Amino acid sequence: MANDKLQGPIRYGPIRYGMVGGGQGAFIGGVHRIAARMDGEFVLVAGALSSNPERAKASAEELGLDPARSYASYAEMAKAEAKRPDGIEAVSIVTPNNHHFPAAKAFLEAGIHVICDKPLATTLAEARKLAALVEKTGKLFVLTHNYTAYPMVRQAREMVERGLLGDIRLVQVEYPQDWLTEDVSAAGNKQASWRSDPKQAGAGGATGDIGTHAYNLARFVTGLELDSLAADLDSFVPGRLLDDNLNVLLRFRAKANAPPAKGMLWASQVAPGHENGLKLRVYGSKGGLEWVQADPNYLWYTPFGEPKRLLTRGGAGALASASRLTRVPAGHPEGYLEGFANIYREAAAAIRAARDGHKPPKDIVFPTVHDGVEGMAFIEACVRSSKKNGAWTKL
Amino acid sequence: MANDKLQGPIRYGPIRYGMVGGGQGAFIGGVHRIAARMDGEFVLVAGALSSNPERAKASAEELGLDPARSYASYAEMAKAEAKRPDGIEAVSIVTPNNHHFPAAKAFLEAGIHVICDKPLATTLAEARKLAALVEKTGKLFVLTHNYTAYPMVRQAREMVERGLLGDIRLVQVEYPQDWLTEDVSAAGNKQASWRSDPKQAGAGGATGDIGTHAYNLARFVTGLELDSLAADLDSFVPGRLLDDNLNVLLRFRAKANAPPAKGMLWASQVAPGHENGLKLRVYGSKGGLEWVQADPNYLWYTPFGEPKRLLTRGGAGALASASRLTRVPAGHPEGYLEGFANIYREAAAAIRAARDGHKPPKDIVFPTVHDGVEGMAFIEACVRSSKKNGAWTKL
Amino acid sequence: MANDKLQGPIRYGPIRYGMVGGGQGAFIGGVHRIAARMDGEFVLVAGALSSNPERAKASAEELGLDPARSYASYAEMAKAEAKRPDGIEAVSIVTPNNHHFPAAKAFLEAGIHVICDKPLATTLAEARKLAALVEKTGKLFVLTHNYTAYPMVRQAREMVERGLLGDIRLVQVEYPQDWLTEDVSAAGNKQASWRSDPKQAGAGGATGDIGTHAYNLARFVTGLELDSLAADLDSFVPGRLLDDNLNVLLRFRAKANAPPAKGMLWASQVAPGHENGLKLRVYGSKGGLEWVQADPNYLWYTPFGEPKRLLTRGGAGALASASRLTRVPAGHPEGYLEGFANIYREAAAAIRAARDGHKPPKDIVFPTVHDGVEGMAFIEACVRSSKKNGAWTKL
Amino acid sequence: MANDKLQGPIRYGPIRYGMVGGGQGAFIGGVHRIAARMDGEFVLVAGALSSNPERAKASAEELGLDPARSYASYAEMAKAEAKRPDGIEAVSIVTPNNHHFPAAKAFLEAGIHVICDKPLATTLAEARKLAALVEKTGKLFVLTHNYTAYPMVRQAREMVERGLLGDIRLVQVEYPQDWLTEDVSAAGNKQASWRSDPKQAGAGGATGDIGTHAYNLARFVTGLELDSLAADLDSFVPGRLLDDNLNVLLRFRAKANAPPAKGMLWASQVAPGHENGLKLRVYGSKGGLEWVQADPNYLWYTPFGEPKRLLTRGGAGALASASRLTRVPAGHPEGYLEGFANIYREAAAAIRAARDGHKPPKDIVFPTVHDGVEGMAFIEACVRSSKKNGAWTKL
Repeated sequence: MANDKLQGPIRYGPIRYGMVGGGQGAFIGGVHRIAARMDGEFVLVAGALSSNPERAKASAEELGLDPARSYASYAEMAKAEAKRPDGIEAVSIVTPNNHHFPAAKAFLEAGIHVICDKPLATTLAEARKLAALVEKTGKLFVLTHNYTAYPMVRQAREMVERGLLGDIRLVQVEYPQDWLTEDVSAAGNKQASWRSDPKQAGAGGATGDIGTHAYNLARFVTGLELDSLAADLDSFVPGRLLDDNLNVLLRFRAKANAPPAKGMLWASQVAPGHENGLKLRVYGSKGGLEWVQADPNYLWYTPFGEPKRLLTRGGAGALASASRLTRVPAGHPEGYLEGFANIYREAAAAIRAARDGHKPPKDIVFPTVHDGVEGMAFIEACVRSSKKNGAWTKL
Repeated sequence: MANDKLQGPIRYGPIRYGMVGGGQGAFIGGVHRIAARMDGEFVLVAGALSSNPERAKASAEELGLDPARSYASYAEMAKAEAKRPDGIEAVSIVTPNNHHFPAAKAFLEAGIHVICDKPLATTLAEARKLAALVEKTGKLFVLTHNYTAYPMVRQAREMVERGLLGDIRLVQVEYPQDWLTEDVSAAGNKQASWRSDPKQAGAGGATGDIGTHAYNLARFVTGLELDSLAADLDSFVPGRLLDDNLNVLLRFRAKANAPPAKGMLWASQVAPGHENGLKLRVYGSKGGLEWVQADPNYLWYTPFGEPKRLLTRGGAGALASASRLTRVPAGHPEGYLEGFANIYREAAAAIRAARDGHKPPKDIVFPTVHDGVEGMAFIEACVRSSKKNGAWTKL
Repeated sequence: MANDKLQGPIRYGPIRYGMVGGGQGAFIGGVHRIAARMDGEFVLVAGALSSNPERAKASAEELGLDPARSYASYAEMAKAEAKRPDGIEAVSIVTPNNHHFPAAKAFLEAGIHVICDKPLATTLAEARKLAALVEKTGKLFVLTHNYTAYPMVRQAREMVERGLLGDIRLVQVEYPQDWLTEDVSAAGNKQASWRSDPKQAGAGGATGDIGTHAYNLARFVTGLELDSLAADLDSFVPGRLLDDNLNVLLRFRAKANAPPAKGMLWASQVAPGHENGLKLRVYGSKGGLEWVQADPNYLWYTPFGEPKRLLTRGGAGALASASRLTRVPAGHPEGYLEGFANIYREAAAAIRAARDGHKPPKDIVFPTVHDGVEGMAFIEACVRSSKKNGAWTKL
Repeated sequence: MANDKLQGPIRYGPIRYGMVGGGQGAFIGGVHRIAARMDGEFVLVAGALSSNPERAKASAEELGLDPARSYASYAEMAKAEAKRPDGIEAVSIVTPNNHHFPAAKAFLEAGIHVICDKPLATTLAEARKLAALVEKTGKLFVLTHNYTAYPMVRQAREMVERGLLGDIRLVQVEYPQDWLTEDVSAAGNKQASWRSDPKQAGAGGATGDIGTHAYNLARFVTGLELDSLAADLDSFVPGRLLDDNLNVLLRFRAKANAPPAKGMLWASQVAPGHENGLKLRVYGSKGGLEWVQADPNYLWYTPFGEPKRLLTRGGAGALASASRLTRVPAGHPEGYLEGFANIYREAAAAIRAARDGHKPPKDIVFPTVHDGVEGMAFIEACVRSSKKNGAWTKL
């Protein structure tokens, strides 16, 4: 069984990590903790869990942290943990977007690996600085574009790499949700509030929150690089400061001997009926693929001229890159948390390799700071294009 | 039963109609004939079935036509039939696009109602002339945008009209197919050949063949009018002269008290895995709808904040406009031919009203020459926008 | 196009047929008429449309019948039509079950081919008499187990015949509906009333109405013969005289070199959420199949150890027996009426062959009086088994 | 967020548990460990991981256990751990079936709570002894019928309890798999080998392995008790000693004022195309439900006479019993491991209550030793009925 492979590392000791953000009332922090815990690879030993001191303290207590390692700020935490012989080896940054950059900077400079939520920063300039810093420090930087770690997404990527689709011609990616159909931030929804506040979220609303996921997924699976885009951004709910819908046309860079691929990207938070509808479709000269996040254990594959196949996680036809991230047999569905935990599993393997002074093994794959830079470039290009009446805009 | 209502008109005598095109080797002509026959409302009595005299003769014989009413050309047919006391009351024009305009003109001028395939013509200018001629002659003009006559499409339209979705914000429509993934016209596929020949098809390839269906469906259901579009057209298969893929952004005209709706339209004939994947999704401030042509008896409806509902043709919640075009009970699927036959059923009702000098009853709905003009405007705007690097283009 | 093949026979003249039952207020009569009309093979020229003289007359008028050929009874109709030089060649019997036997008898004895609704009769004894009479008269007898004529059902049958599933081990067939969940016959539903009246329906309620369809479909696709069954019949709605649910275990006769196949059959008219949920699943030593009537253009096929395939009507992998009953291309859904019309198409081919003194061509397949006998044996075995506390009962 | 509630207990210290079975090469042991770990409630501190001493040692080392707490047998482990002040509070028994009884007995007698795989034992007699022992010792006994802990299964159960389906009339449950279609135990598949060996598995093959899951799920959701059954068991693969397919008719005990419910249960390990196809359908006088394990975040609900609804985990209409076992928002799928972890979460709550001398809170629900007795009664009744040619057999 796949999960038996995981038992090994434990005897070498789990990885000590800390968390920035993720205190009481937060959402994604709890997801990170489950993901880190699932394979027994990580142990949470420190935190700066909230900018509100009382909430930080209560959250730390609830999580069973040593009070001495519950910090008032990430700056303090980075400094203190770097000095401890049993200090954290990695930090998870799960704050609103505007804290990603300064927090990541502090930990990288303290020599601590970083696992960070997307989007990487609030501006492309910040993102580039971070990339330079990662380069300079040589520390690992793992961006939690968690959807890339679903086994059937890996399967799709390997199928494209192996040429099963031929030359890629078309990429259709969408990420509709409906939770911002009405003005829920007015109603005090904390998640909605910071996501629609330009100071905390950056220049993109839905663009940054989910558009970047969609864009990253398309790149991850196809291996294509975007040349330019034409974007139409809207805020349908009166008074909303950031976009809640983006309609985007995509042009990818040509690969040798094939015309450039084209695509469309739709992300929305005002599309009633969609809870979390990330979907990717890729079409090439030899076949097509379709993957839907809400039903992640399936991958539709049509070799042109043959019947459509429904590939399943762990089922017949599973490729190596999918199988190595699978915990239970076919027909026993895995979900969002397992996909998220795969990011932590890949991070653990990379951190263990770093402990020994090695690069991560070749089959270890995770989104990096460079994907974060690309995501910020996407956000800024969308905003720029939309302001210029949807003009085609280079990334 | 719904179908009992149909039995009535037969005692008043079926409608005599003729056909232009649709001889041996053609596809859509046979569909029209089944559609005309299904409810017993029409009888085929004349034809100019092929521009090839031998094929015209053989086809007429096969269909049991009186040899005297098998004509060498539509011009001859229009003239001759207009003179007969038992001449045709209506003609179905099912030729390649370039013959639509002159044939329709000939029959309208001869005082004969026209049922015509889409797209209406090969240029917008022709289309406008035809609209003027319809106006002038007062004859009926029925454009076979057949997808508008599926019962659940009518249901969707009525739900929008009744305000169940609130203000419409987003329209996502797509029409992917895969049959032109490879260069099938080189292999002698007759359907492919004329569709990718600008002289016969007009300026649009996939744009005219299926893009117009998608666009018409979106307008039909939402009642929105398009303000402008930005289009990116491609021909992925080397040597193909017309587009085989179109990615389009849409901006609709604002309705009172609501921001303008936005949309995306994708049509493709190079998307492996899609046989005939027309799909429409509409999202408003109060709910969302999804309809898929391949599974036409279902309509997904989500009132915002409530569980998703799967409405079925003839099932609970069916509205009057859907029920009146339904032949068998829920759970007994209807398909493409029934939807197409609904166009003929509506046409029959309008022709019978015209016999009596009346306008069609209010609940009779079918695409007209004006929808055809709109479709040609769409094609030309797509081509124009694409040539100007996807600039936003007014219709 | 498939439908072009149909145009041929018309020049030889359509088949003249009459109808018994199917007057105003009836359901299945209208379905038969559309089915007969769809391919232009039949023309309705006579009828005994209702046992109520006034309704018979009004119905005939509505259908445009010659008043002289609207009869007060099927006895009279059989006699009179047999004498006419232009008399009917075939009759469609669409009455409640109790009239099937005497009506069919009358027409067979008058030398007229019979197309008859299922179940064949109200007792097995009657059914056997009818089979003997068919044998004796040499006339055609077509039983409208219409579900056997869906193209993908033919595809499934051919796949089993070709050995793609290996030895058949398991047959799971079900036919749930929900329209009798409450006591609708009390509310005056005509369809419900006669179906739950033992005098008109025979010994089986759901067993006869839909159980026979399910049983016939299982036999048709697998080619297996039933050895015995164990049945548990219920009437869940108080006061209902016939069963509204049947749970049945099946044991088939062994084929050479393989253990006997087993199965389960469930039919219900009190299962909320099912409109017309006929579904067949067949499993063998090499693969499995699944077909669902509500989505009839699909057939799921899993060769053991390979990914699941979604076969489509007219799509890649379509076999000859499916393609010959297909009217429009893949992705253009066909439905219940097309499936029903296929029975009439097969009947037409057989009748035309009979005109010329031939047996039907080999690829012509339709349910016969022998399937009707088998269906009546099934009903009686179910009732007998259920009365003996579900004891295993030979057919 | 739901998962924040879980953080609390950690400060009171996680629950110390041990494991019997689950060494290298085993499947379900790894699943239990992930499930125990997911919410941070349990810590693994002892084990008797294999009857093979070398494998036991290697497995313990791999899992990071203190070598002093890696035991050669469960008997030794129960004795030693009971004496330690930091001894285990609970044990997970994940061995082949034949060890469940003696192992559980040893730990119960040592005063240690038991979490045990199903089926409970290899005979009903053993199961009853165990139930008596649980009663006598007062320790907790949690049977891992994990499918009962999926949120949408809890939702279904609460909907039935609230009367939304009216009187339950029909239960259709099935659990098809295909992994034993061929003789894989001959090929050295360890999972297959013990499951088809009567000495290790008991009298039931598929009956015990998956039939009990199906039966338990039906009881759990409907609250019905089985009166009797009629079973037809088969071994389709030559040489297989235990059943690989069971077709069963069910009769439940009547509830006041309603006729007794009926049902069908199918479980198979030779049904190609089914990976792990557990499915439950329940129909009552007011509505119907359908739940499919492979897509566990959905629950189909049809109130009779209204459109079908697709309820989602965490979505609109979620009831309290479902929401309390949910970790991430709607649209972020949860899977098999989360469902399994819910059993551990419920167990943790019960163990913590027991620490304080309390009964588990009312909303805590998990399968107990009594469900295990019921499961063994089901297995034995199936085998007995099948041997008596499918005679109706009381449980």
